[in-house]
Amino acid sequence: MNYKAVFNIIFRLLLVEMALMLLPVVVALIYGEDPSAFLITIAAVTALSGIGLFLSRGDKRIYPREGFVIVALSWVIMSAVGAVPFVISGYIPSFVDAFFETVSGFTTTGATILTDVEALPLSLLFWRSFTHWVGGMGVLVFIMAILPLSNVRSVHIMRAEVPGPTKSKLVPKMKSTAVILYSIYVVMTLVEIILLICGGMPFFDAVVHSFGTAGTGGFGIKNNSIAYYDSAYIQYVISIFMLLFGVNFNLYYFLLIKDIKSIFKSEELRWYLGIAVTAAAVIAINISHLFSNFGESVRYAFFQVSSIMTTTGFSTTDFNQWPSLSKGILVLLMFIGASAGSTGGGMKVSRIIIGVKSVFSEIKRLLHPRSVRTIRLDGSVLDDTAVRASMIFCFAYLVLTSIMSLIVCFDGYDMVTSFTAVVACISNIGPGLELVGPVGNFAMFSAPIKVVLSFAMLLGRLELFPILMLFLPSTWRRT
Amino acid sequence: MNYKAVFNIIFRLLLVEMALMLLPVVVALIYGEDPSAFLITIAAVTALSGIGLFLSRGDKRIYPREGFVIVALSWVIMSAVGAVPFVISGYIPSFVDAFFETVSGFTTTGATILTDVEALPLSLLFWRSFTHWVGGMGVLVFIMAILPLSNVRSVHIMRAEVPGPTKSKLVPKMKSTAVILYSIYVVMTLVEIILLICGGMPFFDAVVHSFGTAGTGGFGIKNNSIAYYDSAYIQYVISIFMLLFGVNFNLYYFLLIKDIKSIFKSEELRWYLGIAVTAAAVIAINISHLFSNFGESVRYAFFQVSSIMTTTGFSTTDFNQWPSLSKGILVLLMFIGASAGSTGGGMKVSRIIIGVKSVFSEIKRLLHPRSVRTIRLDGSVLDDTAVRASMIFCFAYLVLTSIMSLIVCFDGYDMVTSFTAVVACISNIGPGLELVGPVGNFAMFSAPIKVVLSFAMLLGRLELFPILMLFLPSTWRRT
Repeated sequence: MNYKAVFNIIFRLLLVEMALMLLPVVVALIYGEDPSAFLITIAAVTALSGIGLFLSRGDKRIYPREGFVIVALSWVIMSAVGAVPFVISGYIPSFVDAFFETVSGFTTTGATILTDVEALPLSLLFWRSFTHWVGGMGVLVFIMAILPLSNVRSVHIMRAEVPGPTKSKLVPKMKSTAVILYSIYVVMTLVEIILLICGGMPFFDAVVHSFGTAGTGGFGIKNNSIAYYDSAYIQYVISIFMLLFGVNFNLYYFLLIKDIKSIFKSEELRWYLGIAVTAAAVIAINISHLFSNFGESVRYAFFQVSSIMTTTGFSTTDFNQWPSLSKGILVLLMFIGASAGSTGGGMKVSRIIIGVKSVFSEIKRLLHPRSVRTIRLDGSVLDDTAVRASMIFCFAYLVLTSIMSLIVCFDGYDMVTSFTAVVACISNIGPGLELVGPVGNFAMFSAPIKVVLSFAMLLGRLELFPILMLFLPSTWRRT
Repeated sequence: MNYKAVFNIIFRLLLVEMALMLLPVVVALIYGEDPSAFLITIAAVTALSGIGLFLSRGDKRIYPREGFVIVALSWVIMSAVGAVPFVISGYIPSFVDAFFETVSGFTTTGATILTDVEALPLSLLFWRSFTHWVGGMGVLVFIMAILPLSNVRSVHIMRAEVPGPTKSKLVPKMKSTAVILYSIYVVMTLVEIILLICGGMPFFDAVVHSFGTAGTGGFGIKNNSIAYYDSAYIQYVISIFMLLFGVNFNLYYFLLIKDIKSIFKSEELRWYLGIAVTAAAVIAINISHLFSNFGESVRYAFFQVSSIMTTTGFSTTDFNQWPSLSKGILVLLMFIGASAGSTGGGMKVSRIIIGVKSVFSEIKRLLHPRSVRTIRLDGSVLDDTAVRASMIFCFAYLVLTSIMSLIVCFDGYDMVTSFTAVVACISNIGPGLELVGPVGNFAMFSAPIKVVLSFAMLLGRLELFPILMLFLPSTWRRT
């Protein structure tokens, strides 16, 4: 392990985080709030990071191992530092609670320990939602977009931070890929802000909800989430944008360069939209007796499917009261998640496609043991390593979910609460069912369980392996 | 598809089934009950099978495809025929109910639609439990043990019927392997019968409960299952024998030929016992407040862990009332299941071992992309195809469980009932939680859902693929 190179990047990251923290300071000044919690954090962390950066200068060689460790540690440390203003300001006095909330922000989960979010000052609400926006596309991808890093170093970091079973570079230089991705992200966020303002949403609300949508996060600023905005227009805009941010960003790049053929070739896009439409249709029929007309039932079903499948977690109604079929579909969508290369979480649609194709290929192998089998995605043959990695990921995801669910059961809440709390965290969704449903929150869990759930959010956001590696002694051996 | 060869074996199987049905006739005569329901079935099916056997004589070539189809169709047809006496006798008037009950018997599930099992005559109760015993080791394995079949034909059938990710022949001849397995099975069952009688259990009860234990089935003859026998001795005998029947039978063969080294080399055995002991210990502590002393809590915990992990499904108490941690552990054990090559169901411990090892191997691959990785089980390297097949199996198992859970939700019961009903069926356990818990039953489900659940039991018992193949058009093409 090249500790110098690892910490050098982490200190740079902290400086970038402190630069980003100037934004809530501006918000505080605009709305006449006290910015001192942010300023104290910025001053202290900047000083420490400066010293750290000086001490860690020199050897900068990064290998795959360093790449994973940088990503895993960055996310833990960045969350711990991002939690400080909540504690200093006194609005979330417990550090574990503030850490949970900040991890939930950066990992774009949106699970909250706040029982009354409306009591927070706007600057803290801004910071809370801004972490979604930064975490959505990836903090280290952001750093690559703005800082000079060699291509070799970047590739190992990007591979570990961007979700999905297959990683494709859009352009040969990693830095350029990062710039393209962030540009698309910024433009789409701006379009959503404008559309929400057109629908009559106040400016501040439009900005923070667009952050929540873009990062597929789900933190709101009202106690009843999007239900507060009783406007079909606003709800449809958010539904559609959630769905858009759950699409692989590579496809938007193809759209930009007018490579329409590549978009139509995307099997993941077809499955993703197919699953969303089917789920919304079944739920709309299943819940139609709860609404005065079918159009309304479609609107609520579409919003919730879009919100859960993209792992955003906004809600327009208490879906915990829906019939078990609808709730069952939502739980299944929690596992499936959004597309690879999007800001969404979950196991990712492409891994489900690879799994289903593997099952058919296995049946054919049993029937015709001597035939040669290949699995194709988007028309090209997937190599065995990618298929294998994908299946192992799914297995590890479900085993970790099961084990953490048992641990959460120690707090003594019912099985559905304990299980969906873990699923909502590992898939970076936010709300689950029962006590952690859309009208509930995570405040009641004990501190150790909150740490376990924070760990689940990080596991999910970084796709398990970088975080798991932190627990292997061999990762830390010097070479 | 060589239809003649397929149906030739199925007609032989039906004749064997009718021969086995003579046993409940004997039971009826001993206890002075009316054997006519059995006699009518035997007469009609024997006549039809005789004609069928004559018509299907000739071409007997069997390839892998025929092997799978024989196994899948055999199990469906055998269950349909086995259900007839329940219908004719009038004790289970609906054919769907009787089919569910018989599938549940042969697949060693033990899920019942009977609300008052004690109302049945002894001959029907005997037949119901005897199906467990026959289904446990495999009906076609039984046929191979007693009928002359060529080695080549046998190997394709045995591969499809005996559970587990790796199939090893004990001796070169399949027929001899089948005889060895059945001999061990008979002896162990007899020992259990004797031990139960020594504990004061009536002869008839000892026989049927030994059938239920040996097949890891779980059908009892009392409405409160084993709780009826308020004897620590009886409960411990059954606990231990359930655990013994959940061990790979190959290990008993090694014991017979004094190859103790091979037993100690079995990683699956170590994991299997390790998981059982750990789970029992955690549950015993978790439920200790419900019992007057810790010894009692250990007894109940050990019995239930042994019953659920081996997928038997007997109960000595209503574990649905236990805290969520204990229930969560039991649900996890439902998925894990027993050892490969045992009479138990579930995903099998060895597949979990392969999965966990694959996860570690994947982490090492990410850290050191150029290193060569191999996965070993019991000291020898597993080939990639076996590892892949194992992971695909786990994926398919969980996807099918999810989809069937959603279908069961259509009946409108709560999520835990719907989900655990499917898990209890696909893992061949019997009881789940809530409405299908140990004091509940499957009577309330609608007829279509009962068919889906019967399908789940067959899927689980035959390890998915033979049943899935029945739905592929390519399986049925003539060659």
